[in-house]
Amino acid sequence: MSKNRLIYLPLGGAGEIGMNCYVYGYGPVDKERLIVVDLGVTFPDMDTTPGVDLILPDISWLEARKDRIEAIFITHAHEDHIGALGHLWPKLKSKIYARRFTATIGRLKFDEFGHPADAITVVAPRPETVEAGPFKVQFIPVAHSVPESSGLVIDTPAGRIVHSGDFKLDRSPVVGEPWNDEMFRDIAAERPVKALMCDSTNVFSTHQGRSEATLGEPLRDLIMRSRGMVVATTFASNVARLKTLAEAARAAERSVCLLGRAMRRMVAAAQESGVLKDFPPIVSPEQALEVPRGNLMLIVTGSQGERRAASAQLARGKYLGLEMKEGDLFLFSSKTIPGNERGVIKIMNAFSEMGVDVQDDAGGLYHVSGHANRPDLEAVHTLLKPSFLIPMHGEHRHLREHARIGLSKGIGAEVVTNGMMIDLSGNSIDVCEYIETGRTYLDGSVLIGAMDGVVRDRIRMGLNGHALATLILDESDDVMGDAWVELMGLPERGKTGAVLAETLEAELGDYLGRAGTKVLADDDKLEEAIRRIVRQVAMEEIGKKPEVTVVVSRLQEG
Amino acid sequence: MSKNRLIYLPLGGAGEIGMNCYVYGYGPVDKERLIVVDLGVTFPDMDTTPGVDLILPDISWLEARKDRIEAIFITHAHEDHIGALGHLWPKLKSKIYARRFTATIGRLKFDEFGHPADAITVVAPRPETVEAGPFKVQFIPVAHSVPESSGLVIDTPAGRIVHSGDFKLDRSPVVGEPWNDEMFRDIAAERPVKALMCDSTNVFSTHQGRSEATLGEPLRDLIMRSRGMVVATTFASNVARLKTLAEAARAAERSVCLLGRAMRRMVAAAQESGVLKDFPPIVSPEQALEVPRGNLMLIVTGSQGERRAASAQLARGKYLGLEMKEGDLFLFSSKTIPGNERGVIKIMNAFSEMGVDVQDDAGGLYHVSGHANRPDLEAVHTLLKPSFLIPMHGEHRHLREHARIGLSKGIGAEVVTNGMMIDLSGNSIDVCEYIETGRTYLDGSVLIGAMDGVVRDRIRMGLNGHALATLILDESDDVMGDAWVELMGLPERGKTGAVLAETLEAELGDYLGRAGTKVLADDDKLEEAIRRIVRQVAMEEIGKKPEVTVVVSRLQEG
Repeated sequence: MSKNRLIYLPLGGAGEIGMNCYVYGYGPVDKERLIVVDLGVTFPDMDTTPGVDLILPDISWLEARKDRIEAIFITHAHEDHIGALGHLWPKLKSKIYARRFTATIGRLKFDEFGHPADAITVVAPRPETVEAGPFKVQFIPVAHSVPESSGLVIDTPAGRIVHSGDFKLDRSPVVGEPWNDEMFRDIAAERPVKALMCDSTNVFSTHQGRSEATLGEPLRDLIMRSRGMVVATTFASNVARLKTLAEAARAAERSVCLLGRAMRRMVAAAQESGVLKDFPPIVSPEQALEVPRGNLMLIVTGSQGERRAASAQLARGKYLGLEMKEGDLFLFSSKTIPGNERGVIKIMNAFSEMGVDVQDDAGGLYHVSGHANRPDLEAVHTLLKPSFLIPMHGEHRHLREHARIGLSKGIGAEVVTNGMMIDLSGNSIDVCEYIETGRTYLDGSVLIGAMDGVVRDRIRMGLNGHALATLILDESDDVMGDAWVELMGLPERGKTGAVLAETLEAELGDYLGRAGTKVLADDDKLEEAIRRIVRQVAMEEIGKKPEVTVVVSRLQEG
Repeated sequence: MSKNRLIYLPLGGAGEIGMNCYVYGYGPVDKERLIVVDLGVTFPDMDTTPGVDLILPDISWLEARKDRIEAIFITHAHEDHIGALGHLWPKLKSKIYARRFTATIGRLKFDEFGHPADAITVVAPRPETVEAGPFKVQFIPVAHSVPESSGLVIDTPAGRIVHSGDFKLDRSPVVGEPWNDEMFRDIAAERPVKALMCDSTNVFSTHQGRSEATLGEPLRDLIMRSRGMVVATTFASNVARLKTLAEAARAAERSVCLLGRAMRRMVAAAQESGVLKDFPPIVSPEQALEVPRGNLMLIVTGSQGERRAASAQLARGKYLGLEMKEGDLFLFSSKTIPGNERGVIKIMNAFSEMGVDVQDDAGGLYHVSGHANRPDLEAVHTLLKPSFLIPMHGEHRHLREHARIGLSKGIGAEVVTNGMMIDLSGNSIDVCEYIETGRTYLDGSVLIGAMDGVVRDRIRMGLNGHALATLILDESDDVMGDAWVELMGLPERGKTGAVLAETLEAELGDYLGRAGTKVLADDDKLEEAIRRIVRQVAMEEIGKKPEVTVVVSRLQEG
């Protein structure tokens, strides 16, 4: 047995849907040469990450080994795969490979950060091969919900790996290459597949996936039937959908206007990189104002209810002069991602109040998923016949279900979650190490660790309010004046009707009057006592223990 | 035309699902005698109401007219209909009417508050009639997902009103009276129905609703097939479901154990009030520990992922000594209410990590809704033939859709939302007034207004962090020592790597060194300047403007 080993280490995306980042390594133990697949983000929420702007994988493990990184490969241009590239690349400075459209999006990001565009190299699909140390990597075109999505064939001295990327079995994807059984069969015939790392998003969907092309007719019918303005939202990166929507608009003799920065940017990038041809002509928002409502269709950002996107702006009133009115139609050509329901429902109700008809995806009539369903996943297992199946791109329950399917068909399968490093060199999947990893938050303009306590404190203040007690002591540790209490996020009055801040000040005054010099001379003891009193009195008065900050100032001899 | 009028005013539940509170009045303008139907709550969330314990209707309008209130009627024992009764009754002190099971739950609540149990009067269903000033009110049994759910027939001199309550057309509801077309036909035959106030929750569900009884067989099959321990969760108040689950357990030769306070309380109340008979014997958690896993079934609280409920506790580890293990089954005999997805998914994944099989409702196989679907609503319109249809118990989009159905069938229908007072005396639905109303928060032990700014400040601190700057000035307005900055919920260091608090203190020091006596002598100006500097410097350093509290202390001549 060689002393070299083949390792796999997910740093994000395995145990969650989002923030994809996978590492492969080959070489002697702790000297493996590494490649990184994807550097994505996930999105914050008020429950767990209030005030955070973006959530990135914690790549400290990679950073400490950056001299061993041969390359970064980006499978496609979704934010959960490419979103962290601009933020984290300066820590790795490695060469990046992607297909043309993905590279175009990546370079737009690099441009914003002032990173060099030539760090990203455009690669054509298989048979073109990137040599990266001991790895030989090919991009394999797959259908998904963004142009030029790719899986990867990763050849190593220890065997061939197929990293599926995000994919669906779409034989008529409207934009891009149709799914091709033959290519997958060839990949397995050429060299046996040792391991398949496979998308697990839709493992619980038991019916066969449907093609993007099935949406054309229903969308055309819906738009033809409408009398007022039609506004449709979908993910900006779903260029095939934008095309289908725009063509349906054209069939209904409507001018198309794109609203939202991401929407215009994606269409421009898709046209520039050659993946989007024959897109119907677009009118500007200013021109749209001149078009009769019955002849206008807007395609807008904000399918997930994002507060700043075009759909939310239209739900609040005018946006670039355009406004929804009674008799208009608003279409969600999209599905709500779990967790985003409140935002989406809020928009639906705001439109309802305006008299606008809101149409959801009607159980799939106006939207199809970009991920392979269970029967489709099984078809891929059959085509590739891998020795091992390592489910990825899923929460724990998805990975477990997907592994179970593999095992039931005699494929060696294992649930491998973020931070688990496995050794694939032998005839079994062996866990070799648990890496301490987690998440990094982009907070305003700085990166902070998820465990730094910053967000924990915000959550506590958000839940419990914040009480500040200040106190001045003179040179002989005597209290000067009174303790002063300021409250934020707390009821003004307690249940007795008394003003809470005054009750707290009175109680602190009592305490300080009888406190011994030993306490008064000791900042820590004094602060602890004040904190305890504030929390206890607040509990009695308002049934809540606030966060407390104590500032003790001591005057010094001039 | 009489000078008396018949009014309807929803104070909650019309434009939302939750917090139901409806007012009817009859009499001369501004002297109408009033009845209140339901006093429910809705639940807070981190996005909009962090730290809040419960959300109650704002009843200030009612409180100001409490001498005109004849009675409060509670249609059923769900929290969104009865949950505010204990909290708000002291403000109204009116007589309360409910059916036996609802009264039992209400009295349990009253007991906790120390309110008199005899404020709640038990009423038998129609033909028993409560006379409340100009109103004659009958309880009409309907099927729902809690025992003895009722609609109301409200007779007034200006006509008959049917207030549907929450209902479904269930002809085999397992517990309680089956749906009875005849009774509804009689109600309309006896006296024409002027207005139907109607549940709108499921107006977008286009298939006919299914009976609770359809669940028995699938649940029995599922539980019979399981080898390990089976744990099922559903709403504690769904006593019929508890019975179906317990009977399925018995068929599978499993002992049943109820976990969660609400679960045990509901079953006890249902047995005590006579609505639940033949419930299989229950073992205590201590006894359950002695039962082999394959012969045990737990029925637990927490179907919505509530952090403190039994299901979440089991997902975190042991609960009362009981623990989930590999090969066990966890069943959600429930649907996730929009907005609760994150909590539910978190539990699913925690169980997945333990090797527990998680089963959701399987698209309705293991759960049916308690509300009437669209075809069922239409059947009720047809049975009652009301002159007016006023949709209630729905978000705006539900109310609008429901009104549209009524209009399409020639029924006068109007979307009436919280705070809209309508006059039903004539031949049309006339809006007579918009009442300023909103929400009241139970926060710890005190009630605060939604607009008091308390929760707004919490949200801001949660998003932006909180910076405190303190400063001491002597008798001649000279700065003593340095300004002191404390930060909470903010990154320790800015993007330059410098400690943020120190940077802020230095900048404040610079400013104070050059500030004129005019500013230093003026608390407001000084605070404003300090706040501005803190926000501006923080923006530069960390890309974020924190909330700022400034405490200026002035030493006074001894």
